[in-house]
Amino acid sequence: MTKITIDKNAFPYPMPMVLLGAMVDGRPNFMAVAWVTRVNYQPPMIAAALGKSHYTNGGIHASRAFSVNIPGVALLEKTDYCGIVSGKKKDKASLFSVTFGEKTGAPLIEECPVQMECKLTDIIDLPSNELFVGEIVGAYADAACCSEGKPDMEKIRSFTLTMPDNRYWEVGRCAGKAWNAGKKIKC
Amino acid sequence: MTKITIDKNAFPYPMPMVLLGAMVDGRPNFMAVAWVTRVNYQPPMIAAALGKSHYTNGGIHASRAFSVNIPGVALLEKTDYCGIVSGKKKDKASLFSVTFGEKTGAPLIEECPVQMECKLTDIIDLPSNELFVGEIVGAYADAACCSEGKPDMEKIRSFTLTMPDNRYWEVGRCAGKAWNAGKKIKC
Repeated sequence: MTKITIDKNAFPYPMPMVLLGAMVDGRPNFMAVAWVTRVNYQPPMIAAALGKSHYTNGGIHASRAFSVNIPGVALLEKTDYCGIVSGKKKDKASLFSVTFGEKTGAPLIEECPVQMECKLTDIIDLPSNELFVGEIVGAYADAACCSEGKPDMEKIRSFTLTMPDNRYWEVGRCAGKAWNAGKKIKC
Repeated sequence: MTKITIDKNAFPYPMPMVLLGAMVDGRPNFMAVAWVTRVNYQPPMIAAALGKSHYTNGGIHASRAFSVNIPGVALLEKTDYCGIVSGKKKDKASLFSVTFGEKTGAPLIEECPVQMECKLTDIIDLPSNELFVGEIVGAYADAACCSEGKPDMEKIRSFTLTMPDNRYWEVGRCAGKAWNAGKKIKC
């Protein structure tokens, strides 16, 4: 292979697209986030890295809660809109049917096939972002997007983001079973 | 929709699959990780959450460096193997052509279309995991997987993981342009 040096502003490929919700100034607000990952197994914890200038950050600081909502491709345009427009200027919650997590009060998007409500546990202060870490205290799904009571990727139809080309991607074909496909390897 | 409560052990869907590298006891080691995300914009920083029992953790503590390598589907079986077998028992680096990052000495996998070397900046101690945060100090790509000097998803052919169904997925069709597709929405 011919190896080249690329911009250090590099990324995992591809990144999951979610709508992160929080109460801000007493109103539900949602933003599009791809910098999100599970960070702890037990209890289940998730973290999202938000640029410090975002309207949402203050709401999470104050309410000590946030939600992670997984949109399907049917919500791609609305999701993208939530990444373009600030809640300072627009009531983005008006785009969705909003409910509130019974454990935290965090706003949830009913149209999203999977919804998690999270209790804030830590805020890691980084140079240009804040990393919000939360315990998943409630998780919900559209029954029509589940098989045997568990979220089913082929029904959820979530999508991903790549940067710096800034494109969304559907989830493609199943490529194998994890903790299984490598059993044939020997070294 | 009929909303059901699901296991709180819920996940972003889908998660990027990477091979995380570190020097452990003087030798290169690689593990499969899906709990990884960018966490800071400037400087570029990335974080990976590793269960505390993993062999790799001690190596990152000691060397203060790690690498994030993005495998294509051609490496799916080897990647999965690196998630099944511990470096305590097997020399997983023997599966790959290994080079070493010029800035950190972290081991890189030549067969991976994208490789990043990271200087450790923080370790966040969580109940069952350690979250390793690092600055991306060097990023490299296979020229054959780039277009106009940037990584090209359609050439990289990376893959994703979903849990708890434990399946890998190819990246599917381009579904739209980010910071653009939502411009037509009004609210």
